[in-house]
Amino acid sequence: MDRIQKVQKLVGELGLQALVVDHVVNLYYLTGMELSLGRLVIQPDAATLFVDGRYFEGCRKKGTCEVLLTSGYDLKSPFGVWMHRLQQKRVGFDEQTTSYSEYSLLNTLGVDLVPVKNPVGRLREIKDPVEREALRQAAALGSSGMDYVINHLQEGITEKELARALEIFWLNAGGDKLGFTPIVAFGENSAEPHYRVSERKLKRGDLVLIDIGVVLKHYHSDMTRVVAFGEPHEELQKIYQIVYHASTEATRLCRPGSKIGDVDQAARGFIKDAGYGDYFIHSLGHGVGLEIHESPRINSSGPDANRVLESGMAITIEPGVYLPGIGGVRLEDTLLITEEGYENITCRPLSATLPVL
Amino acid sequence: MDRIQKVQKLVGELGLQALVVDHVVNLYYLTGMELSLGRLVIQPDAATLFVDGRYFEGCRKKGTCEVLLTSGYDLKSPFGVWMHRLQQKRVGFDEQTTSYSEYSLLNTLGVDLVPVKNPVGRLREIKDPVEREALRQAAALGSSGMDYVINHLQEGITEKELARALEIFWLNAGGDKLGFTPIVAFGENSAEPHYRVSERKLKRGDLVLIDIGVVLKHYHSDMTRVVAFGEPHEELQKIYQIVYHASTEATRLCRPGSKIGDVDQAARGFIKDAGYGDYFIHSLGHGVGLEIHESPRINSSGPDANRVLESGMAITIEPGVYLPGIGGVRLEDTLLITEEGYENITCRPLSATLPVL
Repeated sequence: MDRIQKVQKLVGELGLQALVVDHVVNLYYLTGMELSLGRLVIQPDAATLFVDGRYFEGCRKKGTCEVLLTSGYDLKSPFGVWMHRLQQKRVGFDEQTTSYSEYSLLNTLGVDLVPVKNPVGRLREIKDPVEREALRQAAALGSSGMDYVINHLQEGITEKELARALEIFWLNAGGDKLGFTPIVAFGENSAEPHYRVSERKLKRGDLVLIDIGVVLKHYHSDMTRVVAFGEPHEELQKIYQIVYHASTEATRLCRPGSKIGDVDQAARGFIKDAGYGDYFIHSLGHGVGLEIHESPRINSSGPDANRVLESGMAITIEPGVYLPGIGGVRLEDTLLITEEGYENITCRPLSATLPVL
Repeated sequence: MDRIQKVQKLVGELGLQALVVDHVVNLYYLTGMELSLGRLVIQPDAATLFVDGRYFEGCRKKGTCEVLLTSGYDLKSPFGVWMHRLQQKRVGFDEQTTSYSEYSLLNTLGVDLVPVKNPVGRLREIKDPVEREALRQAAALGSSGMDYVINHLQEGITEKELARALEIFWLNAGGDKLGFTPIVAFGENSAEPHYRVSERKLKRGDLVLIDIGVVLKHYHSDMTRVVAFGEPHEELQKIYQIVYHASTEATRLCRPGSKIGDVDQAARGFIKDAGYGDYFIHSLGHGVGLEIHESPRINSSGPDANRVLESGMAITIEPGVYLPGIGGVRLEDTLLITEEGYENITCRPLSATLPVL
């Protein structure tokens, strides 16, 4: 069954006559077209893509579904006129990706609107063999970038210089683009989980936190490593080992059928028992694929807590402990869930103790 | 008056007790913080930023407004509990940036929700002197990238190779990142306005369309040039000149007080009179700044058609004519609207006739 057919099946299961897909990543996933704007209307027995003049020619050439030209998406547009045929029919829309103004506009078309939670995103959670291979290749290139950064740590280099050098390294090595703005945090800066690079220079005794990812053939890599540049603060060595063990506690639960909340709790409980529960301040992980953050969210308190891992999911496991003013440790691998358990696609094995350079 | 104060004034003018800002670019514009998630609640006499643990430390350090820690944005979260104080009050939200699910969530908080059209985006249209200087610097770096691409056109090079070389050039020259995926289209590929690069090799006789932009200090450049690599198709020389004159017709109307629809119509009418009206299939231009596409949209049929240009706006003027199967010409400059008229910040002057290499 191809991707559009899977959505068609879902449309039927939800008792809908149609589903409107508007998110550009979902549009790419379903049609193979990179659009900045468009609507795909999926009915149980049809799929119709509406685009403006910028994309019409390209979409017709691609030919993954019927393509119609529209000049906008309001009542009077070709899209609006076409949608009018569906009046009084149950038409679903993605409540997370559809803006209030788009919802209001759809509401003028006379259809019976039904908000649906993440319909395409849920399908995207399960990666097919081609996607899994793309993720492996992205992870390999991502890991070589990590080696590159660690090999280029030297006294006086700035966070910004390293981040830029990494980007150029990846481009020269065939990467499509950065998966996200690289986090290269020296010393006390590592205590901010989503730090942005600065002109801070590396000095002896600094902890270095590196959270980086690259995009290759549309798929994202994501990994985090922490090393010490010279003899580190004693407490940082201690929290490194706690975070490492939290990671292994969570990872060994990664297999089809494991409750997502339990995986998070395995790491969170370990960190709490070690006395640092207040310093692990984010989810354990997230899905990764065409976007750097996808569902499911790996958290014991989030919307996916009671769901289970399934074969084909690609998720990160990234516990962290952050001590304000001192520094933070986060260790992150990307895992493919397999029939048997998991395949860790991050190529650089986690060190059990804080590596000192 | 600082930016938050301007929003506070707007909140009062709209008869609201508060406005919830959720869009990450608007959050950066107002707080100076790069967040992936957060809510800024602006009241006539206060501004309160809610972020999770990943950003709390950094936002407090930045100190542009009061910062409160929240673990989510639902009814039970610190944000939800805080918002509850505003129950029965008129609370605005941005109808374009707020998703249906966020709207539904705000709707559970007991406030009287009021959709507002692009409240912060409208303020962002008028660039202050620091922003104008950032745009000039970005445009200068953007233009040097254009020179780089044109200087590197050679038989057999692929679109992809050129796009990647450009990116590395910009990074080495101090650019922060690409403003958007570069469009480098050879031959018949230029007929697709939003083409993506391929392995297509350059050959003699090809038209080359280059639409590129870089980000420098958060601000975007945007420009498009077309050159012929060897003797071009005769009709392409003709449409080049039509597009060139359409651009000058529109540009000479660029000054405070000019109706936006008239500016678009000046170019559109010229192209129509020349017999190519059906082949100019997009807006004449768009605002540019922290994002590559901002309001206002320069179009005679869009939502901004009856508004006027104002001093401080930064807009693109980019007429185009696309002949399927043959090729397309788009010429794009970025202009700052000044008290007297405009300042063209694109550093490479448009050639009146198709440059042949």
